[in-house]
Amino acid sequence: MSGDHGLKIDGVAYRAIWVAKDGWSVEIIDQTKLPHEFRTLRLTSLDTAAHAIRSMQVRGAPLIGATAAYGLSLAMRVDPNDGSLEHAYKTLLATRPTAINLRWALDEMRGRLAALPPAERATAAYARAAEICDEDVAINYQISTHGLGVIRAVARRKGTGRLNILTHCNAGWIATVDWGTALAPIYRAHDSGLDVHVWVDETRPRNQGASLTAWELGKHGVPHSVIVDNAGGHLMQHGMVDLCIVGTDRVTANGDVCNKIGTYLKALAAADNGVPFYVALPSPTIDWTINDGLREIPIEERDPREVTHLTGRTPDGRIETIEVTPAGAAAANYGFDVTPARLVTGLITERGVTEASREGLLRLFPERQPAIAS
Amino acid sequence: MSGDHGLKIDGVAYRAIWVAKDGWSVEIIDQTKLPHEFRTLRLTSLDTAAHAIRSMQVRGAPLIGATAAYGLSLAMRVDPNDGSLEHAYKTLLATRPTAINLRWALDEMRGRLAALPPAERATAAYARAAEICDEDVAINYQISTHGLGVIRAVARRKGTGRLNILTHCNAGWIATVDWGTALAPIYRAHDSGLDVHVWVDETRPRNQGASLTAWELGKHGVPHSVIVDNAGGHLMQHGMVDLCIVGTDRVTANGDVCNKIGTYLKALAAADNGVPFYVALPSPTIDWTINDGLREIPIEERDPREVTHLTGRTPDGRIETIEVTPAGAAAANYGFDVTPARLVTGLITERGVTEASREGLLRLFPERQPAIAS
Repeated sequence: MSGDHGLKIDGVAYRAIWVAKDGWSVEIIDQTKLPHEFRTLRLTSLDTAAHAIRSMQVRGAPLIGATAAYGLSLAMRVDPNDGSLEHAYKTLLATRPTAINLRWALDEMRGRLAALPPAERATAAYARAAEICDEDVAINYQISTHGLGVIRAVARRKGTGRLNILTHCNAGWIATVDWGTALAPIYRAHDSGLDVHVWVDETRPRNQGASLTAWELGKHGVPHSVIVDNAGGHLMQHGMVDLCIVGTDRVTANGDVCNKIGTYLKALAAADNGVPFYVALPSPTIDWTINDGLREIPIEERDPREVTHLTGRTPDGRIETIEVTPAGAAAANYGFDVTPARLVTGLITERGVTEASREGLLRLFPERQPAIAS
Repeated sequence: MSGDHGLKIDGVAYRAIWVAKDGWSVEIIDQTKLPHEFRTLRLTSLDTAAHAIRSMQVRGAPLIGATAAYGLSLAMRVDPNDGSLEHAYKTLLATRPTAINLRWALDEMRGRLAALPPAERATAAYARAAEICDEDVAINYQISTHGLGVIRAVARRKGTGRLNILTHCNAGWIATVDWGTALAPIYRAHDSGLDVHVWVDETRPRNQGASLTAWELGKHGVPHSVIVDNAGGHLMQHGMVDLCIVGTDRVTANGDVCNKIGTYLKALAAADNGVPFYVALPSPTIDWTINDGLREIPIEERDPREVTHLTGRTPDGRIETIEVTPAGAAAANYGFDVTPARLVTGLITERGVTEASREGLLRLFPERQPAIAS
């Protein structure tokens, strides 16, 4: 029914993470090398998996969760005892603070493994990690279907002409195991013959839009233009954006959306100009334990060097890192911001589209309804 | 009374434009080389002056006006006849479409010169260009005084602690002949002992914040941190911005503010978080002929290469240009956006601070009151 999307690189369809032919090591695409080089990496230990997440060789909330699941599996293979399980859990949890899928996947894994005798843990870990990956693909395909409905509705309202969709950061194939979240409905729309064009926010400081989203969309043949993060408001003021779709790293129980820094600014502009602003998310991205995104979600602060230095390709093909600020300039680097639920038109989940509110989320996920005290 | 600010470079106080020792050629600082190299350039003809504006060796609305005035002077020196005057006017006017100071300065110059016999035009041109420069310095000093009042009022309301001011792009010393517009009150506040810290938006695509504002503030010893353009909303949500001050390239008669792309997004965030949002401007930046900034101000579209490529310094000191997008990626590059008057807390002019409205502007500039039909 769902089936993989499998972005084709030189004719070969890839997921963003998979178990190698040896049956135990785990392969990923080194996303720090894109768009200039397509290079796969082999993760062979807890530490290489933790490093891959921390250094953003893998990123994107769902893919971080999947990588953590395999990181725990790699640890179980070497030492399946309780101390090792706890150490691996803590090591992986500490890699990135904001995306909740990391904790979700680790809780899933630990819950399953702790109940088993150590001798059975490694096999069970690999099995559950593979399930988490397959579930992510299935969930994202459902998101693509529901999101396609949103795109079609906006297209119908518009009538004729190309549909312009703005996205921020990368919530695509490569942010997940396959398909993507925000980009999944766009792939479906394009594949179904809709004339869509994507405004790709470059997404400073790490340029996941300019490097990853533009690369993905280009590989799949979806028309797109890279813009600086400053440009979206102007485009919306002039009717040049019909719809915004972004991903998220954590959604609170009342619909506040934490996503890559700068998302909030686009949501403000969308609200000011009557542009629908949708967020696509798999349910593991919902943090049912918190309500106030602004006060309760930890915002990662990263190395200021990500602001002051950029890496790219010189005209003669070398990869160089350059400093763009005065030598020694101070910089601050906050990784995420929170878009209050009031600015979100709708949440696109695997169970359908709902408004960004406690009521909306509970309508789709009634099993989360707190027990009524009697 | 006013006196030059004269940012000191290696102990020497500079204006941003001046007549060379030869008495006729014009010297500027090549701003495309900053912050990595401080290099002055000699303009010797209409064409080199037009090129300096077009290629952004000089930029910033007031400095563009001053450079155009000297460009016309250089043309008059070679050929002071009517055809030459008209050709120079048109050539310079075509260099940049958005900043109104360019047209203002050219109209000032042509109005003065057309009334004179050709033989007197070159001398009169240099004299008027020098006046325009001196007027700009005096105006900006008045802006600094009125803006200092705004900063002091915000500091009083805050009570204790460092005052955090966010600015976008560069409206500093180097965007004007001297002092700057948005940065002028900040220099005064710092010099008067107020504990100010500036959040410097990097201002993609050309990074005038990261390259020019950070450089200026550093030279003058004003504490500051460079942030990506995406970060300001998050900082405002968390009470980390007390005040925004930006410059502008054109203000309409009813107070709409055209400024560097991305300004609108910061104004939205300021309004959403109750952060005062001020715009500093010399009166030649007011376009009294138009009202609706969104519909009536032409927005410059520049080379997409400014989005896809960046220039900076390698670790071993070479200046390199790198591509950050996939090879051949499409990009769009709009230079400015318009912040509606409703989002502007106040306009800081040489005559005082006023609300961003027709009534507010006419209160300060009553001579602009349209004659009442009787």
